Amino acid sequence: MKTLRLTTREREVLVDVTAAVREAVHANGWQTGAVLLYCPHTTGAVTVNEGADPDVARDIVKTMRKLVPLRGDYAHAEGNSDAHVKSSLFGCAQLVPVEDGEVQLGTWQHIFFCEFDGPRERSLCLAWLPGV
Amino acid sequence: MKTLRLTTREREVLVDVTAAVREAVHANGWQTGAVLLYCPHTTGAVTVNEGADPDVARDIVKTMRKLVPLRGDYAHAEGNSDAHVKSSLFGCAQLVPVEDGEVQLGTWQHIFFCEFDGPRERSLCLAWLPGV
Amino acid sequence: MKTLRLTTREREVLVDVTAAVREAVHANGWQTGAVLLYCPHTTGAVTVNEGADPDVARDIVKTMRKLVPLRGDYAHAEGNSDAHVKSSLFGCAQLVPVEDGEVQLGTWQHIFFCEFDGPRERSLCLAWLPGV
Repeated sequence: MKTLRLTTREREVLVDVTAAVREAVHANGWQTGAVLLYCPHTTGAVTVNEGADPDVARDIVKTMRKLVPLRGDYAHAEGNSDAHVKSSLFGCAQLVPVEDGEVQLGTWQHIFFCEFDGPRERSLCLAWLPGV
Repeated sequence: MKTLRLTTREREVLVDVTAAVREAVHANGWQTGAVLLYCPHTTGAVTVNEGADPDVARDIVKTMRKLVPLRGDYAHAEGNSDAHVKSSLFGCAQLVPVEDGEVQLGTWQHIFFCEFDGPRERSLCLAWLPGV
Repeated sequence: MKTLRLTTREREVLVDVTAAVREAVHANGWQTGAVLLYCPHTTGAVTVNEGADPDVARDIVKTMRKLVPLRGDYAHAEGNSDAHVKSSLFGCAQLVPVEDGEVQLGTWQHIFFCEFDGPRERSLCLAWLPGV
């Protein structure tokens, strides 16, 4: 398993990790199969969405903030229950197919680490599942 | 990687692709493992849910429309930020286990391509991950 | 494919299945790859989130109940459309990486079966996808 390290700079932000994932696929010579992107944090997630217009990522963050507000009738004492909910809604694991040594993203798709309770030092794990 | 083509006829709709996925599993002789269903679009998704009563898919679409409305305080100029949010909430990748050459869906489970910004021509990619 | 059986005791509850998944990984001698946790039910799901403070799971359930209420303008006659929506939002499939024969969960991560329409007898399927 390979690990990417990243530093998030805001409480809620989507960090584009597409280039780093591409490099890891190349560096490891992964050819045909799928790369499992796994976020080992309970207030983060991984997602795939549009990367061309940064407003899309910002709209996603803003919409989620409205849906699951920071302040609410939460029992968890750490004050970040909203981030835990968002983590389960987006999911901590994302599979991306790989063919001919390249991640098979759609035209507009980029891969994002989702920070819901930053700023923090974060990890993103990459595991290789060979296909045929 | 195999690709299914589909045409969606409404802005938001869940299209049942179970039969097409089953056929692809048979046609490719996939026996034991998991089929990765991957939506290469940033305003679509893939999900598994009840297929017996079409009202379930309609309730899902309607509930999501209420949660993440088409019109809102969005920055993205294309006017489909709601669809991008729904895409990340449902996820562009869905794994379904396969055993003895058959997808192992539960009794009521069907596989749906989720259209959140149609009508459009869409693709759904299938990749095979062998198990043991 | 292996199957865990569980009995849920409330309508909406997150059941910690981490120990059972760990045992299954050990018992089957799964070493390097990923375990696919698959919920064959359309009103359940699987997720990974914090397991140290049980208030987190309770806050997740409560927040989802507020977002997608039991009573609403639903067409599906069984009265559990909220549970179907939550199932697609959380997802019926969860991949967890395995290395050196151990699930690679983050420090605070536990695996939960999500019950959204209990109490019921439920199954959780485990399929092994070998890595390298």
